[in-house]
Amino acid sequence: MNVILLEPGDVNDEGHARLSGAAAAHARTVLRVAVGQTLRVGVVDGPLGLADVREVAADGVALHCAFERTVPERPRVDVLLALPRPKVMRRLWAQLAALGVGRIVLTSAARVERDYFDAHVVTPERYRPLLIEGLQQARDTRMPQVSVHRRFKVLIEDELDALCPPSVRLVADPAAARSPAETLAARAADRVLLAIGPEGGWTDFECDLLAAHGFERVGMGPRTLRTDTACVALLALVHGALR
Amino acid sequence: MNVILLEPGDVNDEGHARLSGAAAAHARTVLRVAVGQTLRVGVVDGPLGLADVREVAADGVALHCAFERTVPERPRVDVLLALPRPKVMRRLWAQLAALGVGRIVLTSAARVERDYFDAHVVTPERYRPLLIEGLQQARDTRMPQVSVHRRFKVLIEDELDALCPPSVRLVADPAAARSPAETLAARAADRVLLAIGPEGGWTDFECDLLAAHGFERVGMGPRTLRTDTACVALLALVHGALR
Repeated sequence: MNVILLEPGDVNDEGHARLSGAAAAHARTVLRVAVGQTLRVGVVDGPLGLADVREVAADGVALHCAFERTVPERPRVDVLLALPRPKVMRRLWAQLAALGVGRIVLTSAARVERDYFDAHVVTPERYRPLLIEGLQQARDTRMPQVSVHRRFKVLIEDELDALCPPSVRLVADPAAARSPAETLAARAADRVLLAIGPEGGWTDFECDLLAAHGFERVGMGPRTLRTDTACVALLALVHGALR
Repeated sequence: MNVILLEPGDVNDEGHARLSGAAAAHARTVLRVAVGQTLRVGVVDGPLGLADVREVAADGVALHCAFERTVPERPRVDVLLALPRPKVMRRLWAQLAALGVGRIVLTSAARVERDYFDAHVVTPERYRPLLIEGLQQARDTRMPQVSVHRRFKVLIEDELDALCPPSVRLVADPAAARSPAETLAARAADRVLLAIGPEGGWTDFECDLLAAHGFERVGMGPRTLRTDTACVALLALVHGALR
């Protein structure tokens, strides 16, 4: 953990905050914080800053925070992801937040099992702590916005433009000849929306619908990767191309 | 699994092979192979090919294979990795093999716990099946060569040149301004050796020793990533730059 993220309601106007519960236990037993120590802190969707430890007690850790004037820029990449099986999705949340994504759009697809949507891992109570873990790792405060869509066609045709306004749209395709870097080199892309299909791939119908809505195919060479590996690799390539 | 990898001794000169044990069980119950079906196969460190299923029995699956004339190229990237904790290393083996690495050099460092080297996950009996899993995912046959080194200084000063002959050497450093793509753009790199440090970073002594042995610092921007996420992201960037 490279920063401790606080919820906006945890900090008062004078910068006083109190860690309680799991956060306080982590600070005491893992970080072994002591009175007088300085910690890196941040507020979810707010600024980063530094905090003096004022008190370490069994029921909580009291901090006094001084925040930066600016809020970290929202990551410029959004992800449209065919919902992987729960075990893989569980591994992905923190990694997506650590790599930096503005929005995570989870969708069904012909080759996504329907019952994946009933898994606990797509409920905010489960994924929010994992997103926080990733943000704390990467020293960011910008919480990815998450939405879950059970109807692919409705999402692409009717909802996506409102969720992800005009931007460069890429879809990962192992057969595509052009890399994300080559595709983005010719553009002044402000934001990129990156679509990643299910383990078995998109169907022809889905590919056509994505193409009709502006998604350009990009590849990483002939190796087929597991969804979680592919997500991390593609996000690294797109972020690298945007820098 | 996108190819079934056979051990060299499993295939006779006429191309007959027999899956047994876990491989046969996987073929029967997960892939549901049937007599007459064609499967993608490969031989570890040998060629890829196709196999006809000749027999499916309780004690094994008989195949007749026809192999390509050429063996896949060895991946052009090697990894020098400060041994992460066992749980992270366990997750990494298959991903490294899937992304493609010629060699995996695991090393100690000041911020690597000594007992990580006693973990089962660094024994060939444990990691070889995970590497096979990654190769089968990526449809490759080239088994990464693995070596484990408990003395960092001896490795870098006395052993590394023999393990990884002259090549571009990069070391990941969150503070470095240049990306792998920028660093590799100016070179005709045949192979790249990529060093990735422990969660707490290399010490100054380790950084200096790496620099003295030709490692150039490369970064991915200000976000600090978990070792496994960083490995996947950096390998994707280096492979992308080499293509």
